Amino acid sequence: MAKDFITKEENYSQWYNDLVIKADLAENSAVRGCMIIKPYGYAIWEKVQKALDDMFKETGHYNMYFPIFIPKSFFSKEASHVEGFAKECAVVTHYRLKNDPDGKGVVVDESSKLEEELIVRPTSETIIWDAYRNWIKSYRDLPILANQWANVVRWEMRTRLFLRTTEFLWQEGHTAHATEKEAIEETEKMLDIYSNFTQNWMAMPVIKGIKTANERFAGAVETYCIEALMHDGKALQAGTSHFLGQNFAKAFDVKFLNKENKLEYVWATSWGVSTRLMGALVMSHSDNNGLVLPPKLAPIQVAIVPIFKTQEQLSKIREKAQNIKKALENKGISVKFDDRDTLTPGWKFSEYEFKGVPVRIAIGPRDLENETVEVARRDTLEKSTFQITDIDSKISNLLEQIQKNLFQKAQTFKDENTYHVNDWKEFNEVLDRTGGFIYAHWDGTPETEQKIKEETKATIRYPYQQP
Amino acid sequence: MAKDFITKEENYSQWYNDLVIKADLAENSAVRGCMIIKPYGYAIWEKVQKALDDMFKETGHYNMYFPIFIPKSFFSKEASHVEGFAKECAVVTHYRLKNDPDGKGVVVDESSKLEEELIVRPTSETIIWDAYRNWIKSYRDLPILANQWANVVRWEMRTRLFLRTTEFLWQEGHTAHATEKEAIEETEKMLDIYSNFTQNWMAMPVIKGIKTANERFAGAVETYCIEALMHDGKALQAGTSHFLGQNFAKAFDVKFLNKENKLEYVWATSWGVSTRLMGALVMSHSDNNGLVLPPKLAPIQVAIVPIFKTQEQLSKIREKAQNIKKALENKGISVKFDDRDTLTPGWKFSEYEFKGVPVRIAIGPRDLENETVEVARRDTLEKSTFQITDIDSKISNLLEQIQKNLFQKAQTFKDENTYHVNDWKEFNEVLDRTGGFIYAHWDGTPETEQKIKEETKATIRYPYQQP
Repeated sequence: MAKDFITKEENYSQWYNDLVIKADLAENSAVRGCMIIKPYGYAIWEKVQKALDDMFKETGHYNMYFPIFIPKSFFSKEASHVEGFAKECAVVTHYRLKNDPDGKGVVVDESSKLEEELIVRPTSETIIWDAYRNWIKSYRDLPILANQWANVVRWEMRTRLFLRTTEFLWQEGHTAHATEKEAIEETEKMLDIYSNFTQNWMAMPVIKGIKTANERFAGAVETYCIEALMHDGKALQAGTSHFLGQNFAKAFDVKFLNKENKLEYVWATSWGVSTRLMGALVMSHSDNNGLVLPPKLAPIQVAIVPIFKTQEQLSKIREKAQNIKKALENKGISVKFDDRDTLTPGWKFSEYEFKGVPVRIAIGPRDLENETVEVARRDTLEKSTFQITDIDSKISNLLEQIQKNLFQKAQTFKDENTYHVNDWKEFNEVLDRTGGFIYAHWDGTPETEQKIKEETKATIRYPYQQP
Repeated sequence: MAKDFITKEENYSQWYNDLVIKADLAENSAVRGCMIIKPYGYAIWEKVQKALDDMFKETGHYNMYFPIFIPKSFFSKEASHVEGFAKECAVVTHYRLKNDPDGKGVVVDESSKLEEELIVRPTSETIIWDAYRNWIKSYRDLPILANQWANVVRWEMRTRLFLRTTEFLWQEGHTAHATEKEAIEETEKMLDIYSNFTQNWMAMPVIKGIKTANERFAGAVETYCIEALMHDGKALQAGTSHFLGQNFAKAFDVKFLNKENKLEYVWATSWGVSTRLMGALVMSHSDNNGLVLPPKLAPIQVAIVPIFKTQEQLSKIREKAQNIKKALENKGISVKFDDRDTLTPGWKFSEYEFKGVPVRIAIGPRDLENETVEVARRDTLEKSTFQITDIDSKISNLLEQIQKNLFQKAQTFKDENTYHVNDWKEFNEVLDRTGGFIYAHWDGTPETEQKIKEETKATIRYPYQQP
C-alpha cells in the first residue's frame, strides 16, 4: 500500500490533509467547506462521543435536542452575540422549489419566501434560553444540566478537514443555575472534564487558561479553554467552557423565584467540543508512516495477520488466531482477524500501520510450532516475539503501555517547546525559532495584547490557577 | 399532580398532544413545525438509538456522516426523486447577514447570494451516491453497509409532535451491492430488524408489507414497510426499507468492475426509522392516567418512594432503599430513589404513573418491620406486597412480565381490529364502524387503488410473504 505520502517535515499542512484522506477518516464533499466523515473516521468519533457522554452523565448531565433553525431576530437579542455569530452563517429564505418553467430541473419558488429568515444554528444559546424562560420559574427548577449532540454551521472562508469546516459535529452544554458561584463551578468542572478526556483518552496534554476579553465567546463573561501544542509549534484550541453570567437570562428575560421568594435572573454556562478534536488527535501522535491512534480511541486495537503459503497452514493458523481473538475480546479488546487471501501479509502490515492500529499480531507456521506470535507496536514500530501463554493479559498490558507512552511523548514535546521569557527580545526569538507555548509577562491591557498579536500573531491565555 | 388531562375517548388527537407535552417528552419550539425534544423524551430516544445501532452493527453495518446541505441540482438527477423530495424543503440562498442600515438588528447581505442554492437534506441518497462514485471501483469495494444518524428537514404544512415535524431525527442506511439478489436480501433483512425492534423493544406488533407504486419512496423500485395499528383505528407507518435497484447508480454514474471484469451499475438499498417511533410508542400503550413505557425503553425502570413522617423513619427507610437500589442496579435495572421531602408520596406516585415508569416501589415504616415493600405495576395499575428476599430477581421477572404483557395487549388489540372482507360493502362497513387492518381483495390496478383511496382514504399494502 504505497501511499505516496509527503513527510511532516516537507509540508506539515499537506501531510495532515493527505493523512486524513488516505487513512479514510474524512474527505471533502460536493458542498464547499462541508466534509464527509468516512466510516473509519466516524468510528473514532463514536468512541470520543461515548467517553465524553459517559463523563457528562456521571456528573449529573443529560441530553436533549433543540431545532437546527433559529429565527434571525433571536441573534439580535444579545448584543455581543450577534456580532460574533450572526454574520457568516447559512440563511434559509424559502421553503419550496418548483419545476423550472424552462424544463431544466428545479428553481426556488419565490412565493415561498419566509416572513422571517431562519439561520442554521452556529451555536444554540439563543433558542435554548428562549425556551428556558418557560422551563424555569423557581429555584426548584434549577439547576438545568443539559447538553445536546448536534451539527452546527459557520460559514468559513478557508476550511481544513476536521479543523475548520462549514458544518461540524459537536456537543454543546447549556446549564442554568441559581447562583453565580454554582455557575462558575460548573464552568470550571466542565473544563476539567475536557482536559481529563484529552489527556487520558486522546493522550494529548493540554494547558488550561482564560481567554482575554478580545478572544472571548460572544456573549460570555469569561471564556475558559484548553490548548494543545501541535508539531508545527502552533497551539490548537481543543475545547471551551463559558461562564455566561446573566447575559442570556437578561436577553431572553429568564427569571426565577429564589429561596427568599425574590425574582432574580438565572446564571448560565455553555461548553463545547467538536469534531475538531479529530484533527488534534491526528496531529498529536501521527508520523510519516501514517496515523498513530491511542488504544482507548482506536476502532481496531489489535489486527491479527496470518502468514501462510498453503490453505492447510491457513486453516491451522486460523484456529489459533480465533482463540487469541476470543481471549482478547473477553478482555474488552477490539480485534480484527484479517484472513483475506487476495492480499499479501506485507500489504496488510502497511495498511494497519497506516491506519494507526496500535498492535499488530502476525502468526506464521513457525509460530505454531513454537507457541509464539510476533507482536508489533505502532507507537515505537518495535517488534517482539510473545509466548502465547496469557496472551490476553500481555496484550492488555501492552495497550496500556502504548497509551501511556503516547501521552509521555506528547508531554515531553510540549515541555521541550514551552518557554519562559522575560523580555520582548527573548519572546520574539522563540517565535522566530520554533514556536511553542511561551510564559511571558503581560501588563494586562488590550492595547499591548493587540500589539503583540499584530507583530507576532501570538494570542494570550492567562491562568486561573497556577499552571 | 393533577394534570387536567383529557381522555383518549373524548379527543384522541388532543390526548396524544397533551400527553407528549405534560409528560415532558417534547414541546413546540419558536420555529414553526420544529420540536424541542426534552430530556425525558430524549432519554427514551437514546435507548431506541442504542438498541437499533447495536442491531445494525451486529449485522455488519457501520456509521458515517454526510453534509446537511445538498446542492439543488443533485435532486434533478433522479427523475422521480425530485418530484418526491425537492419540493417542500428548506432552501439556503445566502451565507451572510449584516447590520441593518436602519440600526434595527441584522438583515440578509444580498451580496452573499449563493451561485447555487443549497437544500437542507430531506433524505441523503443523492449526496451519498455522488460520493459512492469515487468509493466504488471494483466488486472488492462492495458491499458498502453504511448508516448515518442525522437530522433531516421536510417542510410540512401540518405538524404534530414526533409524528410529523419539519425537522426530525432519524437514521438512514445507504447500502451498495454487487448483485440485485444481495440488495433485495438486504432490504428484507433491514425490515426484519425494524420489526424485531418494534415488537421486542417497543412491544408494538406490526405487519410487514410492500407499498404500491403510487405510495413508493421517490426513486425506489420497491418500498417495504412496517405498519402498526393505533387506538384510533388508524395505521401508523413505523419504518421503511427501499430496494432502489440501479436507479441512483445510473443517476450518479456509479459503476464497478464485476468478477468477470465487466463494468456494471451498482445495486442499492436505503432504509430508515425516525423520531416518529416516539409517537408510535406513546400511542401504543399509554392510557388516561398518562404514559405507559415498555421496560426495555424506560429511562427509569423502577422508582422507589419512601413513606415517612419523621426524619428518623426516613433515614431507616433510606438505608433499606439504597440496598434495594444497589441490588437492582447490579441486575442492570435503572432505579430512581426519590427522597425529596418537599413533595408528598401521593404527588410522587402520580408523577411516576404519569411518566410511565413501569414499576413503583413504596417503603413505609410497617414495611421495615415486615421486611416487605409495596410494588405497583404501571401496565395493570395493580399493587402487591413483596417480601424483600430476592427482590432483585422478583423485580427483574416483573419487568419481563410487563414487557410481555404490553406486547400481548397490543397484539390482542391488533387482532381484534383486523378484518377479512370479501366485498366492497363489508369493506366499507368495517371502515365506517371502527377502522383497523383489513385483508381484502385487490385487482392489482392503480385505478382501483385510486378509487379506494378517494372513497375511503384507505391505502394498500400487499404481502411479500404470507402474513
